[in-house]
Order: sequence, then structure tokens, then C-alpha cells
Amino acid sequence: MNLVQHFTEVRAYTEAICQPLTTEDHQVQAASFASPAKWHLAHTTWFFETFVLLPYMPGYEVFHSDFNFLFNSYYNHAGERVARTHRGSITRPGVQKVYEYRAYVNGAMSRFIKDTPEEEVCNLITLGIHHEQQHQELLLTDIKYMLWQNPLFPLYHADTRLLDNERNEKQGFVSVEAGVYDIGFQDTGFCYDNELGVHKVYLHDFEIDQGLITNGEYLEFINDGAYSNFDVWLDEGWSWVRENNIGAPLYWRFIDGEWHQFTLKGLQRVVPDEIVKHISFYEAAAFAEWKGMRLPTEFEWEVAAQKLHWGKRWEWTNSAYLPYPNFSRAKGAVGEYNGKFMINQMVLRGASIATSPNHGRKTYRNFFHPNYQWQFTGIRLVK
Amino acid sequence: MNLVQHFTEVRAYTEAICQPLTTEDHQVQAASFASPAKWHLAHTTWFFETFVLLPYMPGYEVFHSDFNFLFNSYYNHAGERVARTHRGSITRPGVQKVYEYRAYVNGAMSRFIKDTPEEEVCNLITLGIHHEQQHQELLLTDIKYMLWQNPLFPLYHADTRLLDNERNEKQGFVSVEAGVYDIGFQDTGFCYDNELGVHKVYLHDFEIDQGLITNGEYLEFINDGAYSNFDVWLDEGWSWVRENNIGAPLYWRFIDGEWHQFTLKGLQRVVPDEIVKHISFYEAAAFAEWKGMRLPTEFEWEVAAQKLHWGKRWEWTNSAYLPYPNFSRAKGAVGEYNGKFMINQMVLRGASIATSPNHGRKTYRNFFHPNYQWQFTGIRLVK
Amino acid sequence: MNLVQHFTEVRAYTEAICQPLTTEDHQVQAASFASPAKWHLAHTTWFFETFVLLPYMPGYEVFHSDFNFLFNSYYNHAGERVARTHRGSITRPGVQKVYEYRAYVNGAMSRFIKDTPEEEVCNLITLGIHHEQQHQELLLTDIKYMLWQNPLFPLYHADTRLLDNERNEKQGFVSVEAGVYDIGFQDTGFCYDNELGVHKVYLHDFEIDQGLITNGEYLEFINDGAYSNFDVWLDEGWSWVRENNIGAPLYWRFIDGEWHQFTLKGLQRVVPDEIVKHISFYEAAAFAEWKGMRLPTEFEWEVAAQKLHWGKRWEWTNSAYLPYPNFSRAKGAVGEYNGKFMINQMVLRGASIATSPNHGRKTYRNFFHPNYQWQFTGIRLVK
Amino acid sequence: MNLVQHFTEVRAYTEAICQPLTTEDHQVQAASFASPAKWHLAHTTWFFETFVLLPYMPGYEVFHSDFNFLFNSYYNHAGERVARTHRGSITRPGVQKVYEYRAYVNGAMSRFIKDTPEEEVCNLITLGIHHEQQHQELLLTDIKYMLWQNPLFPLYHADTRLLDNERNEKQGFVSVEAGVYDIGFQDTGFCYDNELGVHKVYLHDFEIDQGLITNGEYLEFINDGAYSNFDVWLDEGWSWVRENNIGAPLYWRFIDGEWHQFTLKGLQRVVPDEIVKHISFYEAAAFAEWKGMRLPTEFEWEVAAQKLHWGKRWEWTNSAYLPYPNFSRAKGAVGEYNGKFMINQMVLRGASIATSPNHGRKTYRNFFHPNYQWQFTGIRLVK
Repeated sequence: MNLVQHFTEVRAYTEAICQPLTTEDHQVQAASFASPAKWHLAHTTWFFETFVLLPYMPGYEVFHSDFNFLFNSYYNHAGERVARTHRGSITRPGVQKVYEYRAYVNGAMSRFIKDTPEEEVCNLITLGIHHEQQHQELLLTDIKYMLWQNPLFPLYHADTRLLDNERNEKQGFVSVEAGVYDIGFQDTGFCYDNELGVHKVYLHDFEIDQGLITNGEYLEFINDGAYSNFDVWLDEGWSWVRENNIGAPLYWRFIDGEWHQFTLKGLQRVVPDEIVKHISFYEAAAFAEWKGMRLPTEFEWEVAAQKLHWGKRWEWTNSAYLPYPNFSRAKGAVGEYNGKFMINQMVLRGASIATSPNHGRKTYRNFFHPNYQWQFTGIRLVK
Repeated sequence: MNLVQHFTEVRAYTEAICQPLTTEDHQVQAASFASPAKWHLAHTTWFFETFVLLPYMPGYEVFHSDFNFLFNSYYNHAGERVARTHRGSITRPGVQKVYEYRAYVNGAMSRFIKDTPEEEVCNLITLGIHHEQQHQELLLTDIKYMLWQNPLFPLYHADTRLLDNERNEKQGFVSVEAGVYDIGFQDTGFCYDNELGVHKVYLHDFEIDQGLITNGEYLEFINDGAYSNFDVWLDEGWSWVRENNIGAPLYWRFIDGEWHQFTLKGLQRVVPDEIVKHISFYEAAAFAEWKGMRLPTEFEWEVAAQKLHWGKRWEWTNSAYLPYPNFSRAKGAVGEYNGKFMINQMVLRGASIATSPNHGRKTYRNFFHPNYQWQFTGIRLVK
Repeated sequence: MNLVQHFTEVRAYTEAICQPLTTEDHQVQAASFASPAKWHLAHTTWFFETFVLLPYMPGYEVFHSDFNFLFNSYYNHAGERVARTHRGSITRPGVQKVYEYRAYVNGAMSRFIKDTPEEEVCNLITLGIHHEQQHQELLLTDIKYMLWQNPLFPLYHADTRLLDNERNEKQGFVSVEAGVYDIGFQDTGFCYDNELGVHKVYLHDFEIDQGLITNGEYLEFINDGAYSNFDVWLDEGWSWVRENNIGAPLYWRFIDGEWHQFTLKGLQRVVPDEIVKHISFYEAAAFAEWKGMRLPTEFEWEVAAQKLHWGKRWEWTNSAYLPYPNFSRAKGAVGEYNGKFMINQMVLRGASIATSPNHGRKTYRNFFHPNYQWQFTGIRLVK
Repeated sequence: MNLVQHFTEVRAYTEAICQPLTTEDHQVQAASFASPAKWHLAHTTWFFETFVLLPYMPGYEVFHSDFNFLFNSYYNHAGERVARTHRGSITRPGVQKVYEYRAYVNGAMSRFIKDTPEEEVCNLITLGIHHEQQHQELLLTDIKYMLWQNPLFPLYHADTRLLDNERNEKQGFVSVEAGVYDIGFQDTGFCYDNELGVHKVYLHDFEIDQGLITNGEYLEFINDGAYSNFDVWLDEGWSWVRENNIGAPLYWRFIDGEWHQFTLKGLQRVVPDEIVKHISFYEAAAFAEWKGMRLPTEFEWEVAAQKLHWGKRWEWTNSAYLPYPNFSRAKGAVGEYNGKFMINQMVLRGASIATSPNHGRKTYRNFFHPNYQWQFTGIRLVK
């Protein structure tokens, strides 16, 4: 697929995700860790305007001079910006205007790409495409979280892909032998800077489950009283459980004697054979402790990946998000992409049902704070 | 004006206020003390549905069974409700649906009123009309606060009534003689329960300014360094100044060597002869102390009112919001209207340029916490 | 009693209050609203040193040059100071050194007073004596609160005066007739600036209870479920109850099927005939609402005082703490004594069993925020 | 050294550390992350009473039945306890009583050890001894932090060992070759459970500095404006700097044009050739980024240790505190010692001038949250 086609398809997919939303749905920021759909639509566009068109397209004129301030996310290099918690308060430009902004930048980008820019610039465009794909997943999870605030439990869409009823294709443990393994991205094609620098890691023997933990297994954990048994929790996890009164995965509600979960298709019964999701790292670690097993490291996961069916859940590893040997931050704004977040976050490997097509790969390092539940996160065990 | 006409006009005026708003503008809650325009539109409607139509109109069917939960404000008697800080997260029903809700209830109310309900019910309807007028003022002040969040300083409307450039018609002090005066509502027509119970109050001699403090006078206070002089502030006011880094009225910005203020018509220069607004009680009290004068009590204000031109600002008094002798809360939800807020708030008298026509009267007791600035509040002095 | 004798007796009484304390007891600050005993001992001494000896005694040398910074409370005029929440962290000077500081200042003061200072200075000394008496009451209540933190419920003292078992000498309502009354301090002798300025207030007829509410009456309120009935609470009071999980007066514990209260003599059973204490304003107001009565205003209380037995509890009134007509703050540090606190606090009248001898008078205006319970506060009703 | 002698010496050293303290110094908790000296004295004693004497010494009688509640730290298995932030409010038992408690338990322990307990119990005693040594270091750092609260900058002691003026004996980088190395405790003698499980780790080539960063080098970082240059900070580190207004290591004060630091011997000038200390992980990581180098991993450090002079500072590594392969928590309270803290903390290797004699070893894994500065922490770089 050539670059202009890739660009066009990914850009269109973002809008397809937002197609079922009302104008009001586009506007709201339901939590400080989430962003309005309108903001995602604009920010991904701002990325191309700021990092590609402005510096490299001769004669490019910005769509609106205030949009840099409004739609910068966290790039200190790119100047002042609206506070993260405040994104939902900006009503103007409206949703329609943001779609016009997208069309304007899409047009300019198409013309620009057809003039065959230099490789360095093509790489920036590819980065922008993958950046947009990351936001596509966040869009879906932020939309779900936003609709969940509504006591009416509204539907996002009736699309079966979003039924959220994935099951394991296989279960049972497979072995990996001890030895020195190469870790990091070795393919051709795109990857993020945090996957680069192939390096060796020594792994001891381990066995890893081909299947992810199911709702049924997780219900055993709940029904065994694990949420009130300090023994299986990390100390911070135990505080998190008590302070937030946690007793089940995010989106679960016990109604009329039965567990239900809120999905993008509305409220559904919890089906035991389906794979559990919306699990914090604290919960994943507690579940593993309760089960007498452990979570894999990100290196174990990467080496075992070829033996696993993965891609339904982001899977918590017991690795902290830290730089690979020889990692160094790029200069300037693009260097803020990954490196500055390498503290107090845990690595997730895999991909989820909300991940955009062709956006997952086995070396991909996702990362979140250990208390977050709003991504499609799950549990895989090692013994 | 008959009741159905009064009802219809007031209901229409609410929608006129919202007419310049985009759908996105309707949705946002810019602060915990403010509410989305959509919520105001729905909540005022819910009031009529819940307290008039449901109990008194035979065969009335609610527009939607979930709206009670969504649009109750603070009436514990009327059941569970969405948390106040959370009103901006409810995207569905959308704005259009809320206007349909208004039309539906308006239709039912018109039919109901034409059947000449009993006086007790007419009184409830009148209460609902005045309740809606209160929300009209809040609508305007919440819209202003919401647009202020936007670094683009967008316009609300070009209506000259909203130019915010009021001046004093008269200035200079007038005297009131000592004596026992009657306080409280003595007219016919509507008033709130907190104005009832005419009672006697002894007042000592005082002189009160016919004019309100102007921007020019307030600039002297600023330029004299009063915001960094603890001596003129109440202890809590001094903490408020330092913690919130206050140095001017809300909406003022010092740009290119000149003071500007954000108005419903956008950013304007501060004109010295115009009346200052968006003043907290802390600021009003500090200004009075700095000037060597004091704020009036609400009783002094009420007695002097006939000698004053008032209606441009809500005027802070130095009276705490407390019950009049013989005040007692009504039973049920309507009894929650006023009485339960009688603590830690200060009384404001008068009315403002944002007050709805025919909604002000000299016995009206408005009340806010001493730190709030987002109403059109001003300062009148007594010596 | 002459001034030097008055000074000497009051100073000695402060130390008598602290006599049962260990060194460790002297050091601790158990809450941000309380202060360490060591700090009270030093601060009351600092008052005399700073406002009397330094400005007026020729050749006086300060005990230690850093003590002004350490023991200033809230006087902005007197310079920088240790943050209020931080008083408990200052271990040096130690307790013994603070007693030496007291002795040093006592010696200087005695010599100074014998030289018959001018009346203005005598008034300052008298203010210092009454200031110290205020701190004596705070000492007792802060000590009680500090010991309560300890799960061992330690004793302060076996002194019967502190048995906390006061009963009403009389009960039943007495009437006061409507009319214009004079309010404010009219005696000779000392009073605070906030009592000055005799002025007229019109009162309507009322009847006031000669007795204070007892534990038994308060138990009826509890047992009627009032702590979970929003209807009787002010809105802020209801939030306070739920956020702090309040279900009884401070110091009450339900143990083995019976209500107990922590006292300065340790844990005791709650005796129904004794007068209830450690009640917040929120609780007092809710109790009155539940009973279908109300709290008196401070003016009603002052006029009725001669008909009442008072002095066992500080009694919450339904008056906010505001200036009397013609009140103005004195210049300089002494002017910070009262005026700057006249916002968001409620007036208490009377005196308590913890009030120092000869420190109460019927015009005395005590004031606290409506959530505080740690003073010996009670309830008197009006109908 | 036999066990009874080891026990006796370590116990005596704790008291030697506290010898310069006043009673008041013993009582205070200056921050939620610190504990009162009295609490350290009691808690280390409680450890022996609870985990050794009570379960294993026939006929042992507890010193006081309430001390378990008072002096448990974080062992959920050992029952309810006083909240961590609340330790400074417990004035009784007093300091003297806690020393009696120590003597009582010391006596019982000596008799008990002489009866040659089984190896499992000896191991528990050894754990208790090392636990007490950990608290000895915390005692010193908590005392320093407590005295720092005092604007008088009081001295702890004139002991030259505490002059805080360590210098590097060597500087310059040494190389370590790539390969598979064994990590973890392989000696005889004591270690914590988190060091156990010797396992292989692959390391790439690296060069590590034999010297630690000095004050002079750190001053270059400060003088280059690094505290206001977001580019060198982790995102969380940058927030930490701005929210806490950080501009230098803890205990530094710029006075009269010169940098000073508060030490256990009082305020001293910052000497450029001495080794910098009281550095957070955020600062260490920013310094490394600014220098174009990086921090070592804990594995690199352990392998390089034999080539380094270490023991003056705890050295931040860029390794998160996570379990070694095959780590599993012991059952019961002792299992709470380490494992439950393995989240959101960074590993420090080495030892500091405050570490007790014979308490450091090259496999020791210390760990703190990345914002803490109050330990004697420093920076070593790798390239």
C-alpha cells in the first residue's frame, strides 16, 4: 500500500469510528485521563499540520492560527497548550469546523505526498499515521467511558465486531526454553523508537498459558473474596481497592442477582466463557498471586508470542516501562513521544479488539499506570 | 398578564437566551458551580413536570421515565439524581431532544392551566415561572463563564443590552434616619418564602451612596496595592487571594499595558466610568475597608431602596443569609428551595443586567458564597 | 484585684492546667485546628513580650530572638511566622525552655507593672490576660482532643471539676417581650472590641428554654434516625454528616451495646440526665429543626441571659459572626484580634465548664466554623 | 560474632543514635513518610516481641497488651494498627516507657537466645536484627528531616562521622564486558528474600564511573538552568519540579549569595568537591539526561560493584523494583516484608554514610518512590 493510500485509509477510519456519535458525544471529556472525540479528531490533524506541513510544505497556510494552542497534547516543544483536564470546555471551534479542518489538512497532505517528499519526511508522515491509529483506540475507549457515565446506558453502535464477546481459541501452557534471546524490532516497516535497539536478554525456562483469563475464572477470584483479602494484593493495589471501593472489573454491575457488563452495545450479561477485560494492573497482579502463578515479563511475552494467539486484549506484563539499552530520545518535539513517560508505568503487550487493523505487532510496547482499567486489558499467566 | 401568557413568555425567553448557542455550547459544564445550558433547559422543564403535571394533571404521562434522575438538581425529596459535578457528561438526551421535552411539557402545561387549576396549584406554577427566571440569569452567567474558558474569547451575541457598559445615573450619599422599620414582602404578587414574615428591625442612622463603585474607583484600589495588603482583607479573603492568585475582578486581563475585560460581546477595554462587576464578597469587603466605609446590611438596603437606582448589579450586603423570624421550611420538596442553604452565604440585594425582566423586587434575597465572582455583582457603600 | 495580682494568677493558672501533662503531651498538635500545649504556653507569653515589653519597657531584652517567628499565631502585623499546621514539628526550644521563657517574661512584667504604666498600656496588659484566658480554654479542649487520638484513652486528671457531668438546674420556657433593646457591653471592666458599640435591636416576642438539651433528649434524636434524614439538615450539614460519617457527638463511642463518651477523666457511660456537649452548629441546627423549634439569635440570648442559668456550654446561636454597627478594626496588630474573622462563622454565647473563672460575661461573643465540635458546645432552644 | 552479641550490639546502637535527642525530638513525626524516633524505638522492639518471643518463648508475657496496636507498622497479618500518618499523635506511652519496653524485651531475648533456639527461629532473630538496622538509617534521616522543619536549624550532634563531607576516592570510567552474569545473593550469611534466587542476566558492554557526582558537577546542572528546562526531565519529574517549586537538592538554601546545606551538624556551605546527596530519582534521571549519559541498571551495578568504591550514597538505578525470577512471598506476616511493595518504586544500590556498620552488601536492593529525597541518595553515571 502506498503512502497516500495508507494515509487516506487511516484518516477515513478515524471518522468512521466517530460516525455513530452525536455532536454532543463529540464534545464531552468524561475524565481527566480521557479526551473528547472532537479533540482526538483535531489533535491527530494538528500533528500532520505542525510536524509535516508547516515545516516542509512550501507556502502552506495554517487552517487557523489558534489551533496549535487548542490541540497540542503534551509537546512542550510545540508551545503552550490548553490544560489536559480542560479539553472538554472548548466548544468553539465546533465539531463541524473540526471536520473541515480535517478535510483541509487531508487535501494539503495528499498534494504534498504526491510530490514525493524525502524519506525523512515520509517517516514523519508514517509516524503521524501510527499516532492516529493509537488515537483510534483511545477514541473507542474514551467513548465507552463517556457513555458509561450516563445512567441510561446508551448504545454506541450495533456493529457485531464490538459485541465484546471474544473467547479463547486455545488454552493450556506451552514451554519456552532458557537462553539468550534477541528483543526488539527487527522487521522492516514502522515501529516506535521505544522498540528499537535489538538487544539480548537472558530468559530462564518458563511456561505460558495460550489462553487469557476468562470471566468465569475471574468470577472465582471474586467469589473467593479476593477483593477483601489483603494477602493477594500489592500494597498500593490494596489502597486502591479500598479507597475506590473496587469489587469487580470496570463496567461490571451486579443487577438483580446477576453480573452484567456495560459494552459498546449496551448492558450485557457476563458470560463465563468469554475473556475478562478492563482489568487494572493491580487486579491482574492480585489475580496471579491468588492463582499461585505470575504475570510474564515483557521479554518472556515477546519471545513466546509466536506460540500464542494474541490481539484480543492488551496484556499486563510485570515489566516496568523503561528504556532499552542504547535508547535515546530524539531531539525536539518528536523526542517527547515516548521517552519522557518511562517512569511509574507498566508495559502491556499484545493488542486489543479496539486496536486498529495492522496496528499491532509483537514488539509493540504499550504502557499505562497500574490503576487504569478503561483500556481493553486482560490477564495471561506464567508458571 | 394571565398565567398562561406569563408561563408562555417566560418559557420562550429561556429559549431566546440559548438561541445564539451552538449544540456544543449547550453541552458543556465549565465549572462545578455552573451547569450546562442543556441542563438548565431541561431542569426548569422537569420542575413543572414533577411538581405540577405529575401530581395534579390527570392522565399526564411523563416524557421520559429517566429524566427525573437526569434533571433533578438538589431536591432530596424528588429522589436520586446525577451528581452536580457530573451534569456535563450526560450527552444523551441530546440538545434537540431537550427542546422536544420543553415543547411537550409546554403543551401539557398550557392545556392544564386553561382548565383553571386551584389556587394552590397556580401558586406552584408561579413558583415554577420564577424558578425558571432565576435559571435564566444563571444561564447567562454560566454561558459567559464557559466562553471565557476558551482562549479564542468567542462572542456570545452582539445584542447591545449585553454590552456591559452600565454607568451610574446618580452618585452621592443620601441619609436614612434611625428607627424601627418593617422588613419583608408586603406587596401582592409573588415572592419566595425567604422574604415572607414581615417583621420589625431597628436601624441606626446611616448614609448610603446612590451610585455603585465604578471601574475607575476599583482601579485605584488595585493600583494602591490592595491585593497585596493583608490589612484590608478578611482572613479568609486573604487566603483566597493568595491561593487563587487573585489581582483583579473576574474576567479582567492586563494586555499590552491596559486592563481589558471579557464580556458577552467579547474582549473590551475597561472603561473607568462604568460600574465594576464580577466582584466577590471578599473583594467588596476589602474595598469597603480600604475606603474607610462599610457595606450595608440587607435591612439598611431594603429600607433605603426607594431612594436608590438599583438593578444593574447584585449588591453584596454584610448580612449573612439567615432565616427571618417565624421562617419555617415548607414540607416536602418545595421546602428545600431556600431554607437549607441558610449557612455560610452572604445576602445580595438588587438585581443585575442579567436578571430577567420583572424578576427583581426590593425584598428579593439573593445569596452566594463569599468567593463567587461569576454573577454580575458590584459594590455599594455606606458610611 | 490589682493588675499585678490578676496577671500573676492567670499566668499561674495556665501552668496549673498543664501540670498533669507529660513532656510528650506538651509537644503534639493533634489536628490543624488545635495547637500543642507548648505552643499555647509560649504564644501567650510572646503576646506580652511583643505587644507590651518590647514597645513599652525601656531596655527590655527579648528572651530569644527567634521566638517571634516561632510563636506568633496569626498577626500579619507582627511578621512572618511558622505555618499553623506546622506548630507541632518544632521540638526546640523544648518544654523546659518554654517554662523558662514564661518565668523570664513574668519577672519582667511584674517589674514593669509595678512602675504603674499608662492606662493605654494597662489596657494592653488586660487584653493579654484575657487573651491568655481564651487560650486556657483552648488548652483544655486541645488536650482532650489529643488524648482522644490515643487508642488507650488515657486520663488527663482525676479532678472532679472535669467530670463532665453537668446537669440543668432549671428547665422550662420563659418569655421575653417584643421591643427595642440595647445590645453590647455596658459595664465597666474589660471586654473585647467586638462587644463594643451599644446599639439598639428590635426583638419580637419569644420563649426560651431555661435548660440546655440533655444527652437523653439527644439520644431521642439519634434513635429517631435523624443522622440519616436529610430533611432536618442544612445542605452543608448533610454533606458534612455523609463525608465524615457522623452519627453522634464528638467523643461518643458505642461499645458493647451502650453509648460511652471520652472525657478528661477517661471513658464514661453517657448519662441521659447530663447536658449534651461537643455538638457542631450543623447538629444543633438539625436538632432544633427536628424538634420543631429553633436556635436563638445572639441578641435574643443576650436579652434573655439574666433569666437563664448559663456557663456550662457554649451555646450555638443562629447569628453569623458579623460586626456591630460602628465597629471598626483598631490599627495595627491588635486590630487583627477579631474583625478579620467576621465571615463564615457562627456566634456562640455563654461560657463552658472549660472557661476560665471570671472570663465569661453575657455580652461575650465567641465564634467558630459550623463544623467544629471540639469545644464544650451545647444546644438551647427557642420557640 | 555470636547471635546474642550481635543482637545486643545492634540494639545498643539504636539507642546510641537517639542519645542526642530530647524527649520532644523523640515524639515528633515531621512528615507522613517519616516516623517519630519513639516509634522506631518501639516498633523494632515490637518486631522481636511479636514474631519471636510470643510464638516461640514459652511463658513469655507481653510488656503491654496495647503495644501491638500502637507499634505495628504495615503488617496486615499482625492485626489492626495506628494509621501511618498518625504515629506522632500518640504521646503515651512516653519515651521513658518505650526505653523500658526495650530493656524488657532485650532481657527476654537474651535469655531466649541463650537457650539455643532452632535454626528457623535464629533466622527470624537475624531478620529482626537487620530490620532494626534498616530502621537505624531511617532514624537518622527522619531526625535530620525533623530538625530541618525548625527555622532555628538546630544541631543533632557534633560527631565528625556526620559531617557529611564525603569525597570520591577515585573517578574515571571502568568497562564491563558483555555477557551472561549471575545476579543475586550467593554468599553465606543474611540477606533479604528479594535478593534470593540467583539467576542469569545478559548485559551489554558498558562503562561506569568510579566516582559519584559531586556538588560542583551538580551546580553546573543548576547553573545551566536545568530545573527550568523541560527537555531533560521525565514528564512526571517535570510536574514534580513545578508543583513543588524544586530548584536544588533537599536541604540546600541559597543564603547571602551562596549555597548552603543543612546537615546533622547544622547549616554548612556547599563544598564543590564533596559528593552531592538528597537527590530524587527524578533529579538523578534529569542530571543523566543533561549530561548525555544514563543511570546504570541494578544488574549493571551489581556486576560492576567489585570495581567501585561504594557505600557513601545510596545510588539510584534505572531499574524498577520488581521480583527476581522465582521470587515468591513467604506466607504470613514476614512475607509482607518486601514483595507487596514491588510497584512504582525504583531500586537503589550501594549504602550510605547513614547505613549501619555491616548492613550493606552488593546485592542489597533498596527502593523508594522516585520523588523522595530525604535519604542520603546520590548519582553514578554510565555511558
